[in-house]
Amino acid sequence: MNTLREIGEFGLIAKIRNWMRVSRPEVLRGIGDDVAVIGMGKRSLLITTDILIEGIHFERSWTDPFRLGRKALAVNLSDIAAMGGIPKYFLISIGLPKRLSFSFLSLFFRGLKEEAGRFQVDLIGGDTSRSQKIIINICLIGDGEKRELLFRNGARVGDDLYVSGTLGEAALGLKILQDKKLKRKSKRLIERHLAPTPRIQLGQTLAKKNLPSAMIDVSDGLLIDASHILEESRVGARIWEDRIPLSGVYRKWVNIYSKDPYRIALDGGEDYELLFAAPKKNRTGILSLARSLKTPLTRIGEVLPEKEGFSLIGKEGEKIPLKRLGFDHFK
Amino acid sequence: MNTLREIGEFGLIAKIRNWMRVSRPEVLRGIGDDVAVIGMGKRSLLITTDILIEGIHFERSWTDPFRLGRKALAVNLSDIAAMGGIPKYFLISIGLPKRLSFSFLSLFFRGLKEEAGRFQVDLIGGDTSRSQKIIINICLIGDGEKRELLFRNGARVGDDLYVSGTLGEAALGLKILQDKKLKRKSKRLIERHLAPTPRIQLGQTLAKKNLPSAMIDVSDGLLIDASHILEESRVGARIWEDRIPLSGVYRKWVNIYSKDPYRIALDGGEDYELLFAAPKKNRTGILSLARSLKTPLTRIGEVLPEKEGFSLIGKEGEKIPLKRLGFDHFK
Repeated sequence: MNTLREIGEFGLIAKIRNWMRVSRPEVLRGIGDDVAVIGMGKRSLLITTDILIEGIHFERSWTDPFRLGRKALAVNLSDIAAMGGIPKYFLISIGLPKRLSFSFLSLFFRGLKEEAGRFQVDLIGGDTSRSQKIIINICLIGDGEKRELLFRNGARVGDDLYVSGTLGEAALGLKILQDKKLKRKSKRLIERHLAPTPRIQLGQTLAKKNLPSAMIDVSDGLLIDASHILEESRVGARIWEDRIPLSGVYRKWVNIYSKDPYRIALDGGEDYELLFAAPKKNRTGILSLARSLKTPLTRIGEVLPEKEGFSLIGKEGEKIPLKRLGFDHFK
Repeated sequence: MNTLREIGEFGLIAKIRNWMRVSRPEVLRGIGDDVAVIGMGKRSLLITTDILIEGIHFERSWTDPFRLGRKALAVNLSDIAAMGGIPKYFLISIGLPKRLSFSFLSLFFRGLKEEAGRFQVDLIGGDTSRSQKIIINICLIGDGEKRELLFRNGARVGDDLYVSGTLGEAALGLKILQDKKLKRKSKRLIERHLAPTPRIQLGQTLAKKNLPSAMIDVSDGLLIDASHILEESRVGARIWEDRIPLSGVYRKWVNIYSKDPYRIALDGGEDYELLFAAPKKNRTGILSLARSLKTPLTRIGEVLPEKEGFSLIGKEGEKIPLKRLGFDHFK
């Protein structure tokens, strides 16, 4: 265990959690969660941060500065959405090459402004620096009613598992962007990768109606994000593969990159949909909420006792082994 | 005005402030201040962020990971100190090369932990990513009594100007670090550059006793940081050059790099001392506070009407022209 590559991202986070001790009692959630939670009476302060680095998270040749601005904020908004919180303010640290054109920056901030306006969040500060590659770090602050907020750790045996929207489009969009041989490209799929929509209203409504028992956003891929809920809730689960919601455009393009039509939807990241567990008694409530928000909410699985583990069930009822749960930033 | 180099850092910040409008009324200070301030009844929430990039802000060959961890947090603590606030929680985003050794990381977090423990701040979250160069972004959150907090914009004509500690050592330490010809080096000066001490207790005590009218930390250099107070307060000032507090070790080493013994103390950054304006009637209070905290507080100048401008006065009473006010990150 001598390099980062060997310990991996989750190994590193576990180490950091071990090294650094939290002493202030009002810190309700800290290292290891997507959002930090500070208790302040009946409300809680929510803080999340995400870093985007050119060459790692995006390429200047794939994206345009307007969409980059939108996405930089969207990925943070999605973390707040997954708790049912209200995003309010953000700070941005940017590292910029000296020769970067002014029009790039002005378009980047136009995208940032559009996304900020859409979700009523205010830019309140930041830092700027020179750097070789573009670096964007956003720190987003929000809040929520303490008793309404949703975490990863509330799922109970017998709960249903739901996911919003459709999966795999962002990952497929990325493959299309990276594909130099392709002549015709799918704008819709590329757009899902470059300009994802955070599920702010859905998250808030679910939390206000107290329907889910646990929630997370699908950023690393369905299987890996589901496993976070299971680990923190100390439960197992089964997911029915053929219930995974796939869009028509995904089905049309997926066979170029995978014989298995579900693999990319299960493993691919950056959909920024919401995945949640909810007691069976809330099925009617969830159905009617899906209708009123015009947002598909699909029941894809169920929560089992921890000893049952996590399994994916195929069409014929067979267990599909989960060899690889998503990816790791350092591997 | 086609590239960042042409508009410069302060030009960019002015543009951003223009592009992005703040709509939430509780945002008391936003873009352009070192710390964002959110009103929450009698208290205010304080949020600040700083980015450190390998090759720009530090070199792995100069510093050690322990001191890098301390400094990454210290520069943020200093921003809260300059308002008289109480730092409480922080998030860290880190970009790390895959081949970085585990011992580097473990030492870095040991330094971070030491600094966090010293000032009772808790690490509550963050993000990790792969990157070519080491990137460290910290977002620090604190609070303070609304009526005690100090800003850049309260200086009044007739106020005195004070600075804490001694100036120029950090900048001189950096020159020594960069100097390949030097055989003997000054540990004390290098230490001031690599592991600065944020003036948290001094800032808080000054604010609680309501002694200053405006305050800032000296991060970009005395002249440039003083000019921020003057601009935001719409006043002028004179500073007496021979009152600038210089340490013995600074005086001993400065002549290697500058014929003018004051230049590096006036222009050099990263001292993280506090610079503040205070009404004349508070002279006794400030003197006795300096004594009780065992911290030098030197009266270096006075606040004048705006039309008098900003001038530096030499030993013989002559005006020294201020050609260059500090530096710019993109120039």
